[in-house]
Amino acid sequence: MNELKPETREALLQVQSSTLTGALYRRGFRNMFLQDVSPLKFDQPKMVGLAFTMRFIPSREDKNGPGVKDLARIQPKAMEECPPGHVLVVDSRGDARAASAGDLYIGRLKARGCAGIVTDGGLRDSEGILRTGLPAYSKRPTSPPSPIVHHPVDLNLPIGCGGVAVWPGDVIFGDCDGVVVIPFDIVDEVAAECLATTIYDEFAEEEVAKGRPLAGLFPVVNDQAKADFEIWKKKHGR
Amino acid sequence: MNELKPETREALLQVQSSTLTGALYRRGFRNMFLQDVSPLKFDQPKMVGLAFTMRFIPSREDKNGPGVKDLARIQPKAMEECPPGHVLVVDSRGDARAASAGDLYIGRLKARGCAGIVTDGGLRDSEGILRTGLPAYSKRPTSPPSPIVHHPVDLNLPIGCGGVAVWPGDVIFGDCDGVVVIPFDIVDEVAAECLATTIYDEFAEEEVAKGRPLAGLFPVVNDQAKADFEIWKKKHGR
Amino acid sequence: MNELKPETREALLQVQSSTLTGALYRRGFRNMFLQDVSPLKFDQPKMVGLAFTMRFIPSREDKNGPGVKDLARIQPKAMEECPPGHVLVVDSRGDARAASAGDLYIGRLKARGCAGIVTDGGLRDSEGILRTGLPAYSKRPTSPPSPIVHHPVDLNLPIGCGGVAVWPGDVIFGDCDGVVVIPFDIVDEVAAECLATTIYDEFAEEEVAKGRPLAGLFPVVNDQAKADFEIWKKKHGR
Amino acid sequence: MNELKPETREALLQVQSSTLTGALYRRGFRNMFLQDVSPLKFDQPKMVGLAFTMRFIPSREDKNGPGVKDLARIQPKAMEECPPGHVLVVDSRGDARAASAGDLYIGRLKARGCAGIVTDGGLRDSEGILRTGLPAYSKRPTSPPSPIVHHPVDLNLPIGCGGVAVWPGDVIFGDCDGVVVIPFDIVDEVAAECLATTIYDEFAEEEVAKGRPLAGLFPVVNDQAKADFEIWKKKHGR
Amino acid sequence: MNELKPETREALLQVQSSTLTGALYRRGFRNMFLQDVSPLKFDQPKMVGLAFTMRFIPSREDKNGPGVKDLARIQPKAMEECPPGHVLVVDSRGDARAASAGDLYIGRLKARGCAGIVTDGGLRDSEGILRTGLPAYSKRPTSPPSPIVHHPVDLNLPIGCGGVAVWPGDVIFGDCDGVVVIPFDIVDEVAAECLATTIYDEFAEEEVAKGRPLAGLFPVVNDQAKADFEIWKKKHGR
Amino acid sequence: MNELKPETREALLQVQSSTLTGALYRRGFRNMFLQDVSPLKFDQPKMVGLAFTMRFIPSREDKNGPGVKDLARIQPKAMEECPPGHVLVVDSRGDARAASAGDLYIGRLKARGCAGIVTDGGLRDSEGILRTGLPAYSKRPTSPPSPIVHHPVDLNLPIGCGGVAVWPGDVIFGDCDGVVVIPFDIVDEVAAECLATTIYDEFAEEEVAKGRPLAGLFPVVNDQAKADFEIWKKKHGR
Repeated sequence: MNELKPETREALLQVQSSTLTGALYRRGFRNMFLQDVSPLKFDQPKMVGLAFTMRFIPSREDKNGPGVKDLARIQPKAMEECPPGHVLVVDSRGDARAASAGDLYIGRLKARGCAGIVTDGGLRDSEGILRTGLPAYSKRPTSPPSPIVHHPVDLNLPIGCGGVAVWPGDVIFGDCDGVVVIPFDIVDEVAAECLATTIYDEFAEEEVAKGRPLAGLFPVVNDQAKADFEIWKKKHGR
Repeated sequence: MNELKPETREALLQVQSSTLTGALYRRGFRNMFLQDVSPLKFDQPKMVGLAFTMRFIPSREDKNGPGVKDLARIQPKAMEECPPGHVLVVDSRGDARAASAGDLYIGRLKARGCAGIVTDGGLRDSEGILRTGLPAYSKRPTSPPSPIVHHPVDLNLPIGCGGVAVWPGDVIFGDCDGVVVIPFDIVDEVAAECLATTIYDEFAEEEVAKGRPLAGLFPVVNDQAKADFEIWKKKHGR
Repeated sequence: MNELKPETREALLQVQSSTLTGALYRRGFRNMFLQDVSPLKFDQPKMVGLAFTMRFIPSREDKNGPGVKDLARIQPKAMEECPPGHVLVVDSRGDARAASAGDLYIGRLKARGCAGIVTDGGLRDSEGILRTGLPAYSKRPTSPPSPIVHHPVDLNLPIGCGGVAVWPGDVIFGDCDGVVVIPFDIVDEVAAECLATTIYDEFAEEEVAKGRPLAGLFPVVNDQAKADFEIWKKKHGR
Repeated sequence: MNELKPETREALLQVQSSTLTGALYRRGFRNMFLQDVSPLKFDQPKMVGLAFTMRFIPSREDKNGPGVKDLARIQPKAMEECPPGHVLVVDSRGDARAASAGDLYIGRLKARGCAGIVTDGGLRDSEGILRTGLPAYSKRPTSPPSPIVHHPVDLNLPIGCGGVAVWPGDVIFGDCDGVVVIPFDIVDEVAAECLATTIYDEFAEEEVAKGRPLAGLFPVVNDQAKADFEIWKKKHGR
Repeated sequence: MNELKPETREALLQVQSSTLTGALYRRGFRNMFLQDVSPLKFDQPKMVGLAFTMRFIPSREDKNGPGVKDLARIQPKAMEECPPGHVLVVDSRGDARAASAGDLYIGRLKARGCAGIVTDGGLRDSEGILRTGLPAYSKRPTSPPSPIVHHPVDLNLPIGCGGVAVWPGDVIFGDCDGVVVIPFDIVDEVAAECLATTIYDEFAEEEVAKGRPLAGLFPVVNDQAKADFEIWKKKHGR
Repeated sequence: MNELKPETREALLQVQSSTLTGALYRRGFRNMFLQDVSPLKFDQPKMVGLAFTMRFIPSREDKNGPGVKDLARIQPKAMEECPPGHVLVVDSRGDARAASAGDLYIGRLKARGCAGIVTDGGLRDSEGILRTGLPAYSKRPTSPPSPIVHHPVDLNLPIGCGGVAVWPGDVIFGDCDGVVVIPFDIVDEVAAECLATTIYDEFAEEEVAKGRPLAGLFPVVNDQAKADFEIWKKKHGR
C-alpha cells in the first residue's frame, strides 16, 4: 500500500489546487481537477490523503430498497475499512438526487483518522458533517437516502469521480477551490515543486500589490525578478 | 383547510430533512425532496408550514409585459392571500432567468405571518430578503423582473416544484440541506417518528465521535445499542 | 472612450441589480443580466465600471499549450491595458473546466485601479482573489490553468458573456445577486431613475415591515402612497 | 370556442414554421417556437389545429401508481374530449423519462378527427404511432409508462410546453422543423401574410438557384425584385 | 451462466419496449429503460440477448494514450469474449465526446454471433456499423478515438448504463424506442405476459382505428372487450 | 489564402471522420471533432472545404431587432463573400433557440460554389436546405429568425464552434458522423495517411466479416496481416 511521506504531506498542506494543476499540466496531465465538486464550506481545512474508493451504480428494486437485505453492507464497510490518512472517494455518477453519505458515516471516518470524503453526488446532514470537522466535498447538499438512487457495488477499484479517473492509492488534495488527483509516483516531486512555486507566488503577490507590472514577474520570470525573489526570501527567512 | 397541530410543528422544528426523507422512503415515497432548490442562506431559520401554491407559465407578449395590463394581478394576490403559517410554493418550471419574487413581496409574506417561500426559479434582492428574516429557497439569485420569463396563471392548484408534486395543504419543511414535502395525512406520525430518530441520532453521533464502530449502531441497531441508548436518554433527560 | 460621470457612478453604487433590470426592461431591454455568473463572495463590494473585453476560443494543441510560444501574450496584456475604472469582462463560452484568470492577474487589475473582473467561466485561487479585494464574478471556482481549455484571441471586441452581449464601453454593474450590462448612452438616466426607485423601495420596505398591504404601494403606486412617500422623504432628509 | 376558418387552415398548410415565426416576430412575439420538440418522422404530414391542453405534474406514490385508483382518469378523458380538428398539447415539464402517451391513445385521437399531438416529454410505441398517421411531436421516444414520472391533473388550462405559453384555443402549427403557437386573434392575417411570403420565397429560391445575388432579393426586397416577382407570378399563375 | 429459453427469445422478438416497461412496472421496477440511448437506425432489427458488460472510467495520461501500452487490451478482449447471443453493454458514463466502439469491433461482435451493442456514450463509423447489421444503440454518433476520453477497466461487473443498473446476465431488449433491462429470473413470465398483451394491443389497435371509444378497451379492460377479444383471436388464429 | 490541393481533396472525400480524428490524435490533437453538431440528413454528400467564419454574439435590443437598421448586414455579406470551395462555419455559442441561417442564404452559398455550412446553433427551412443539396450541419432544426437570439459581429476571425477552435483557412471535413477540423499545414500528410488507413480498414472489414479474430488485425497490425493486406491490395487493384 502506498504511504505518503510526512514532508510531502506537509508541503501539500501549504500549496494550492491551482499550483498543483499547473505542475500536473506541465507533466502532461490535463484532467486531474474534479468538475462540479466543491467544499461543503469555503474555509474548511485543506485535505490531503490517499484514495480509497467506493463505487455506486444506479439502484434497482430487486437489489436494494426498504424490503431487500443488502448482505454485503458495502457502505458501512467502506467507513470501517478506509485506512487512516486516506480519503474516501465515491463514484456517484454525478447524481445528487440522493445522498452518497451522511453525518454518522462521515463521523466514523473522522473518528478513525481518515483525511476526508469526496463524492460527485450529494451529501446529507450538512450541519452534522460540519460538526465532525472532516473535509467534505460534493456536488451539492441532498437529503434523500442513498438507496433511492444508488447501489454500492465494490470498494477500491479504479473509478471516475467528477469526470476524473481515480485509482486507489492516488493522492487526493482539496482546498477552497476544489479537489485535485495526483498520481502517487510523482507526488513527491510535484509537492516539492509546488511548494517552491507557492513561495514565489507569495513574493509575486506582494510585488503586484505594491504596483509592479506583470512583465518579467508572471507568468514568465526574468532575471530581475529572480534576483528580487532571492533577496525577498532571505529577508523573510523562506 | 388543513391545520398543523402545534406539537407536530414543534417536532418538525427539531428534525432534519434527511431524517424526514428517510421516514417517507420507508412509507414508499421516493421523490419528496426538491432538487436544485437551496436556502438563500445556510443558517437561515428552519421552515415549517402548509403549502399555498402559485403557478407560472412562460410569459407571452400578448398576455404580459410592460404594455399589457395584468388585471388579475395574481402575484400580489398570492402575497395577500397565502394564509399565515403557510409556505408560498411557486412552480417556476425550474427557470431562473427571471425572478419569481423579490424583497417587497417576501416582506409582505413575512408581515402577514407566513412561514416561508419556495421556488424552483430565482429570487431577486437577496439582501432585502435576508432583512425580512423569512426562510427563502430558490434555484439561485436572479435580478430580471418576472414578466420577462414568467406569467402567473393560478393559485392553489397542484403544481410541480423542483421535480416534486406539491398539493395545496401539503406540509413543507426546509432546513440547510433543502426542502421536503410531507403529505398532510401522515405528518403527525412522520413527525413523531422523526423526532425519536433525531434523539437516537444525537446519541449515535456522540458515540461515533467517541470512537464506537458503526456495527450495531447504524444503520442497523442491535440490542446493545438499544440498551445504551436507554441509559443515555435517562442521563440526558430525553 | 466613454467616461462615467462621477454622479452616475455614485448613484449606481446605491442601487440594486433588480432595480436596474427593471428600468432596462421598461426601456425594452430583456436580456441584460448575466446568467449563471455569481459573486465570489456574497458580501464583496459592489462593482461599477466600463467594459473592457477579452475573448477566449477553445484551446488547440498547435496554438497553445506547454510547448507552444504564445507571442501575443494576450492575457497579461489584458491585465496591463484594461483602463482604470474599467471592468475586465471575459467571454469564456460558459466553460469553467479551466480558469479564466487567477489571483496574480486579478491583483494586477486591482493595483492598476480597475473596477472588477467578470467571466462566464471559472476563476482560480479564490482565497488570493479575496485578498486583492477586487469584485470578482464567475460561474464557479476552478483550478486548472486556462490553456487546457481556453485560447485568448483578442481584446475589446463585442463579446457574449453569460448569454448577454457586451460591447466595450458598456457599463457593467455587479452586486450580491449578479451582474447587469447597461448601454452607455442611457446610463445617466437609468442611474437617476433607479436611485429614485431605490429611495421609494426603502420607504416601501419599511411600510411593508410595519404591516401595510401591497395594494397601492407596490408594484402599482397610488396617490396615498405617493403622499406618504413625500412625508417620509422629508422626515428622513432624502 | 374558437373555430379556424377553412381558408386560414388551407393557407397554413402551405406555409413553413420559419415563415410563421418571422411574421410573429414582426408583431413582437419572440417566443412562439417550442424548443427541443421535434416531429416523430421528418416527412410526417403538416399539422394545423386549435390547442386542447393537458397538464402533468410529477407523480407521487399516494396519488398515482399501480396500487392507486385514478378515479378521474384524466388521460383517457383527454383522448375522448379533445375536439376534432384540435391538437392535444401536453405539458410534461420537458421530462421524457416516461411517456406522455402511446399508440392506442394517439390512435383514438386520430379516429376522432383530431389534428395532432404535441408533448415536451416523450412518446412510446413509435411504430404504432406512425401507423395511426397522426402528426406527433415530442422530445424523444421513451417507453416507460407515464405514472412512473407523470400525474395528469387538469385539462384545458393555460400551460407551458417546450418553454412556450399555450392557451386553449391557440393555433398550433407543425412542420418538419417543429411546432409554432399562433394567437387565435391574429391567425387570419398571419396566415394570409405568410402565404404571400411563401410564394415570394418560392420565386426567390428559384432565382437564387439560378445564381442571382441576394442584394435586393433577400432579406431586403428592392423594386427590381418586386417587378421580377410580378412577372414570375403571372407566368406561374400564382 | 444464464441461458435464454428459445421460446422466451421468440416471445421477446414479438413484443415492444413499452409493453415490457409496463410489465416491469407492475412488478415494482421503475427504472429499467435506458435514458438518452437510441437505435443507430429507426428500423434496425430488434435486439434480444444477455448482458456482457464493459466499464470505462475517464482516461488519464499516465494510464492510456498514444504513448502508453495498454497491456491488458480490455477493449478487443471484450469483442472476443462477449459470448454469442449476448449484448455488449458499455458503461461510458453518458460521455459521447469520444467513441465507445467502431465498425471493426462491432463487426467482430457480429461475426461471433453476438446479439447487439449498447453504450450510453457514442459510436463511430455509423455507415460501417450499419453494414455489419448488428443492432447498435448509443447516445449519438461520435468520431474521436476512445482513449481521448475513456479508459476501459474491467469486464462483466455490474455497471450503470443510461442511468440503469445492468448486471451481467440480465436480459437486454432493444427496439425502435430504445433499450430495456429485464432481470433474468423473471424474464420467462414477463415475456409470456407481454406476448399476451401484445396480441391484445393488436386487437385494440384495430378496434380503435375503427372508431371504438377507449372506455372498457384501454387501459382498463371490461367484459365486453374481453369477449370481443376472444372472438377476434379465434378469427385471426392467435 | 490557403488552397486545397486537388489530390488532397480527393483523398479526403474517400476517408471517414473517425479515421481523421485518429490521425489527428496521433499528432497530439485531442479536440478537433465538433460536439453536438450533426448532418441535416444522414446520407447527405461528404463535405470538404476551407473554413470561412462568421461570429454571432447574443442579440440586444439596441443593436438588432425589427426596428433597428443593421447597416453592416454581415449575414448576407457572409453568403456573398464565403469563397467557392469554402465552408461557412458559424459560431452560434451552441444556442439553437433561433436559426443561424435558412434555405435562401444556404441556396446562395450553393449557387456560389461553396462547399457547405456548419453551425453549433440551429438551421431553419430543413426541406428547402435539402433541396439546395449543400451539406449542412447544425445542432438541430429551429425556426425562429436569428435576430431574436443572435447578432452577427464579424467575419473570418478565429472562432469556437461545437467546442472546437476554428481558424479561417482550416480544413473542414464532414460525413455522416459529424464534422472534423484539420489544421491546413498538415492536411496533405493527414489526408494521405488516412487514405492508406481507409484501404486497410476496407480489407480488415472484409476479414472481420469472414470471421477472422481481431488479434494482429486491429487495432495492432502484425506481420501476417500486413502480408495478407499486400495480397488483398494486388487482388483488388488498390
